This record gives sequence, structure tokens and C-alpha cells, in this order.
Amino acid sequence: MADFEAKERRVMVAVDESEESMYALSWCLKNLIPPDAQTTLILLYAKPPPPVYSSLDGTGYLFASDVIATMEKYSRDLADSVMERAEAIFKNHSNIKVEKKVGSGDAREVICMTVEKFGADLLVMGSHGYGFFKRTVLGSVSDYCAKHAKCPVLIVKRPKN
Amino acid sequence: MADFEAKERRVMVAVDESEESMYALSWCLKNLIPPDAQTTLILLYAKPPPPVYSSLDGTGYLFASDVIATMEKYSRDLADSVMERAEAIFKNHSNIKVEKKVGSGDAREVICMTVEKFGADLLVMGSHGYGFFKRTVLGSVSDYCAKHAKCPVLIVKRPKN
Repeated sequence: MADFEAKERRVMVAVDESEESMYALSWCLKNLIPPDAQTTLILLYAKPPPPVYSSLDGTGYLFASDVIATMEKYSRDLADSVMERAEAIFKNHSNIKVEKKVGSGDAREVICMTVEKFGADLLVMGSHGYGFFKRTVLGSVSDYCAKHAKCPVLIVKRPKN
Repeated sequence: MADFEAKERRVMVAVDESEESMYALSWCLKNLIPPDAQTTLILLYAKPPPPVYSSLDGTGYLFASDVIATMEKYSRDLADSVMERAEAIFKNHSNIKVEKKVGSGDAREVICMTVEKFGADLLVMGSHGYGFFKRTVLGSVSDYCAKHAKCPVLIVKRPKN
């Protein structure tokens, strides 16, 4: 009935600043992708939405343009740093094709949209929130994606020890 | 860093009366378990807890013993029928070792306990509730397991079409 289908698979891993997302990436490489597999790994990092230039901050002050520039640079550096950490994890997997994507906005929407846009067969992510921006006030990112992503979702928890 | 580890893997699939859980089993066989993989598939069915013999039902009547016997037989038949449907799905996978387990009680607790007891490396399940007993009033079984199971959890949704 359900024979294994030998075909290229597109595995998307949502990575962020957390140790947990790096653990999820590592688990997936150790356990899901055999050396002879035809797999494309899509690494996705969703950075926070860009600041709204004309708005006031919480204390009533306008952001100065150099502050905005600094925030944007910080956001870019963060994306680079996350991708570098991810690369260190999969560098021994010469058989894997890797595509890197950086999205901007609400992590839940960015992830689900990217799954659909790039036709992922499987989405892999950590279970706890999404990075230290605490973009989890509206509920867990992984809960949301498990329900709404248009492909199966693998949620990997980092063991406590 | 994260080389694929060639080792036996124990994949637990939680099955129930739903088409979705059968789809999850089928997806997992087609996409996760290559023919040469050393995999033990643990099929788990959690049946509802046995009726409490001395208690009254909702309308104030005691269950007669023949009613209880009928309910128990129904529950056993249901477990058999679910396992038979699952067998039809994996019958072509001669390389896979299969263990069948039937637990009794709250599906969420049965699943998480069984993951731990049998050392599953991966838990696979459908996303919508758990069978037609509507044992989902306290929240989704898959949400709970994604948070509490002591291994990564793969949630498979059945496509709408």
C-alpha cells in the first residue's frame, strides 16, 4: 500500500536565535536525512518586521534615523549569525543542497507562507517560541504552524540535560 | 558536525478510528522510512477507559452487566479494526519490524507514557483530535503530545482534497 517513494524531498527548517532551533536542525540531520537521500534543506530565518519610521516609541519619542539604522544593522547581523551557526551544523553533509531564506514579519505567517511558496514536504522547528524577541505573546509559533502549515510539521524539543 | 547516525530507530505512530491517523501512518511510510532503514514501527491505539462498573450513567440508571459487556466488546472490536486498517497500509514494508500496543485511558497520557516506556525516537500522529469519541474537550491531543512527549513529534494533517 504505502511504499517508500524515492524522490527529492524539500525539508524546511525554521531557525532562530535559540539553541532549540539549532538542536532541531541537528536532530533532523542526524535522524531524518540519510547520506544517500535526495534532499534539499531550506533554512528559513524570520526576522522581526522593520520598524515603522514615523511612529513614536513607547515613551513618546521619535526614533532618530541613526537609531533606526542601528536597529536594521543589528537585525541583519542577527540573521547572518543565525545562518552561520546553522552552517556549522550541516557542513559535513556534502550531499545536501541548501537554500537559505530570510523573511521579515510575524514568524508564524512568514513560516507558513514560505512552506507554501517553496513547496516544502516537511517543516522542522523547535517547540519553544521563536527567538529572544519573545514573538510568542499571541501563542506558540510551533502550535500555530502545526495547525496551519500546508505540510507535516516536526516539532523537536531540546532535552533538558 | 551532525552526521547521519546509522542506527535502529523506533518510530511510534498513534493510530485511531480517524482517516487522518491512517494518512499519517501512510505518509510516514512513504516519506520517512527508506527500504533499507532499520526501523521498528510501534503502532499505538489508545482505547477509551473502561466504564466504571458501579457508577450511574447520566440519566441515573445503573449500567446492566450485559450493556457493559457489549461496550467492552465494542471497544475490543474497534481496536482490532483500527489495527487491521493499519496493517493494510504497511503490509508491503517487509523490512519493518512492527510492534502493536493497545493502551487504555486518556489518549494524551497513554501516548506520552508509551513513548517513554518503549523509548520511541519519534512520535507520528494526525493533527485532529483523537477518534470519534471526541476525547478532545480538554484540548488537542497533538498539541499536548507536541509539548509533553519525550521525543520529537511529527504532526501530519490530511490534505483537504
